[in-house]
Amino acid sequence: MHAFFNPSSVAIIGATEKASSLPGIILKNLLDMGFAGKIYPVNPKYKNVFGLECFASLLDISDEIALTVIAIPASFVLEIIKQQAQKGIQYSVIISAGFREMGAEGIQMEDEIRKVARESNIRIIGPNCLGVLDNYTNFTTSFLSWERITKPKKGVLSILSQSGAFAISVLDLAAQEGIGIAKMANYGNRMDVGESDLLAFLRDDVHTEVVAIYMESVDHGRRFIEAAKACSRKKPIVALKVGKGAAGIAAAKSHTGAIAGNYAIYKAAFLKAGIIEANGLEEFIDGIKVLSMQNPPEGNRILIVTNGGGFGVIVADYCTENGLEVVPPSPQLKEKLREKFAQFYVVNNPIDLTGSACDEDYRVALQTCMVESDEYDAAIIIPLMSPKGMSEKIVSIIDNTMKASGKPAVVCTVGGTFTMKVKQLLEERHYPVFPSPERSAKAMSMLLQRKVLQSH
Amino acid sequence: MHAFFNPSSVAIIGATEKASSLPGIILKNLLDMGFAGKIYPVNPKYKNVFGLECFASLLDISDEIALTVIAIPASFVLEIIKQQAQKGIQYSVIISAGFREMGAEGIQMEDEIRKVARESNIRIIGPNCLGVLDNYTNFTTSFLSWERITKPKKGVLSILSQSGAFAISVLDLAAQEGIGIAKMANYGNRMDVGESDLLAFLRDDVHTEVVAIYMESVDHGRRFIEAAKACSRKKPIVALKVGKGAAGIAAAKSHTGAIAGNYAIYKAAFLKAGIIEANGLEEFIDGIKVLSMQNPPEGNRILIVTNGGGFGVIVADYCTENGLEVVPPSPQLKEKLREKFAQFYVVNNPIDLTGSACDEDYRVALQTCMVESDEYDAAIIIPLMSPKGMSEKIVSIIDNTMKASGKPAVVCTVGGTFTMKVKQLLEERHYPVFPSPERSAKAMSMLLQRKVLQSH
Repeated sequence: MHAFFNPSSVAIIGATEKASSLPGIILKNLLDMGFAGKIYPVNPKYKNVFGLECFASLLDISDEIALTVIAIPASFVLEIIKQQAQKGIQYSVIISAGFREMGAEGIQMEDEIRKVARESNIRIIGPNCLGVLDNYTNFTTSFLSWERITKPKKGVLSILSQSGAFAISVLDLAAQEGIGIAKMANYGNRMDVGESDLLAFLRDDVHTEVVAIYMESVDHGRRFIEAAKACSRKKPIVALKVGKGAAGIAAAKSHTGAIAGNYAIYKAAFLKAGIIEANGLEEFIDGIKVLSMQNPPEGNRILIVTNGGGFGVIVADYCTENGLEVVPPSPQLKEKLREKFAQFYVVNNPIDLTGSACDEDYRVALQTCMVESDEYDAAIIIPLMSPKGMSEKIVSIIDNTMKASGKPAVVCTVGGTFTMKVKQLLEERHYPVFPSPERSAKAMSMLLQRKVLQSH
Repeated sequence: MHAFFNPSSVAIIGATEKASSLPGIILKNLLDMGFAGKIYPVNPKYKNVFGLECFASLLDISDEIALTVIAIPASFVLEIIKQQAQKGIQYSVIISAGFREMGAEGIQMEDEIRKVARESNIRIIGPNCLGVLDNYTNFTTSFLSWERITKPKKGVLSILSQSGAFAISVLDLAAQEGIGIAKMANYGNRMDVGESDLLAFLRDDVHTEVVAIYMESVDHGRRFIEAAKACSRKKPIVALKVGKGAAGIAAAKSHTGAIAGNYAIYKAAFLKAGIIEANGLEEFIDGIKVLSMQNPPEGNRILIVTNGGGFGVIVADYCTENGLEVVPPSPQLKEKLREKFAQFYVVNNPIDLTGSACDEDYRVALQTCMVESDEYDAAIIIPLMSPKGMSEKIVSIIDNTMKASGKPAVVCTVGGTFTMKVKQLLEERHYPVFPSPERSAKAMSMLLQRKVLQSH
């Protein structure tokens, strides 16, 4: 699979400088990304594309080619695969749409391509996809420009997705949420390479520490479970399964030709494979975010610290709903806190520092309960930034105390520009920030779920 | 209740120019807002505060006073209420904390104040609260500055909240989400005026068209149901009940001294009163947003239009989960669409315009299915903005076609700066935009729920 993410040489079929052409956009993106491997444009119309020598056909290239990228109309793809077989090129990303998702004729075209590929040991990602992105080798086959999508920083998350639009949105959201990306693969109709092969590959990928999967259907049920089980022993996997009800199943079929199947079977398979299942796009993003940034807690005893009492109440509700225990502090711990705080602060769990709170109160609460005491396994911290006593210092206070405690924390805060700045600073230090009480509690429960899966 | 939101004259007890003093900040906020009524600072230490004549005591003011604002330490409040009784001032907002939420002594102080107030027909909002905001009269008793919270524009939503931090966060979120605000009341310990009185008042308030309530507990069960029922006949009410499980109930008690009670009883009461219940902060915001911006659909047949197939699949799933029907187009309608679209577009429900979509394709889809056909009651539109064919024109396309259809729509889109700009433009035209498939489907179902409640 390495050749898909870091090919020593790549041929771009149909390459042109035309801004309206898919192969042209793919080539331009690749050049803009600063990919270091050799690039061979292929197009009988040109001698030269973006300053690179252009070849009339694959067969005219005398050098070895590791990978082809094919984004020409569906009916011409088979011929390219035949040339590729002749030249002994073993890997191909087929971007072109117009296959299985279009019905009988498309299925037949796929079958013919598959036959040639099997005979010649050619592995294929696609068709009907964006292909791959490797954030470390700077290789990509995506035809979407980075003008409208923010490119995420380098990081530990790799994304597998049947849907291209979904994969791109996850990249965009990852950039917004401060989540770093290692690799992305979008395989669309998945005529050959799918989740199972890619999971096996990502299990041993040095850059990947968390795997996110968007699934409409699965390539091979049993192989998938085995690959996922082996991968999840080393790295958390978060999955979003779509096509659950009748309307969604029909939509998935039109989308990638996927047979979404019985959702109950997927649920059981995820459980068996140690996969953390997300309910909806936001839970998916929240899960990969918390798992990319924090380590699982040792247990489920959660401390809630806030200067917004109402938020504390809601987080407590959703902790209970998600299997997290909001245990009150012991009389001794209460006494220690009582000595340090103003009388009207609520010394309980949640600790309510009230509208009069300042940054330093958070230091006292976290130092006393998380560092000097063993009564809690993790903290949900809810610093509302509107009172004057709250400043950017909250970032280093949370970082210093939580690091000293060796325990994980998630942050919930809500607000405008100033709050967003604090969120960004916290996420740069790997404290995930969530915009609602319910999502912060759910994210903490997903972190705990990873702990439970690890200990099985 | 008018005197609470638009007092002809108001006395600020303890007024000062000191930036660290609560009464000082409240006075400054009120002056900054440009409130047109008469303001009387009261403080024996000063002759003059912010250029206004300052009085040593309430009793020294010869003019009539409609309302007092009290934000001095708890133990001094009773004396002020006694003076107020003597002068015949009928309304008071008590901001001060340190009462019921602190235990026995605080409860006793509240009881003494209540006794005097009852004998003299004084109505009280508070204590332990931020009091009120009226976005039309520019009156407020809030002690939080607008430097860190964005002030929302004038609009149709009024907010009732036991929690101050929560009320402020909702204002802040409303500003971010393009939701306009009419009134806000935060009553904290709610020793007198609560939801029931305020609902009766908002029912007839000309500026209020949607009511949002954050509840830890209720003031008077039966009165609340009656007031809510009468209000919800005219205007939708969205409620967030917190303090559901044991941990949340305990937290609510520490927070506002509220007895959160049995959640099942609340659920039944909400149903009886025609209240739409939200599960969590985001659903609360989403519900008030969709109800502030769009009219309920006539039925539950939903058209999904997207250029991101995967998003269409997820929305279809969550429509099913929320009781919305994603019915396929009739053969005739399919034929009409087929004639107008490229062959690889998926002409079904969802309509998938694929990564090749441009703005105009949305016009064709919405014009054909929503304006020229009667097969759908509402649309969920998912324009992903990354393809080059997508521009800001999508805003007027959605607006023009949906207006022509007379049917409601919600929009789902995900992305960075450019997408956020499109979101803002859409929300200025009252099309609510949600950042995930699950939330857009849920919001549409809340709009439908309003229709169902209206027809009962």
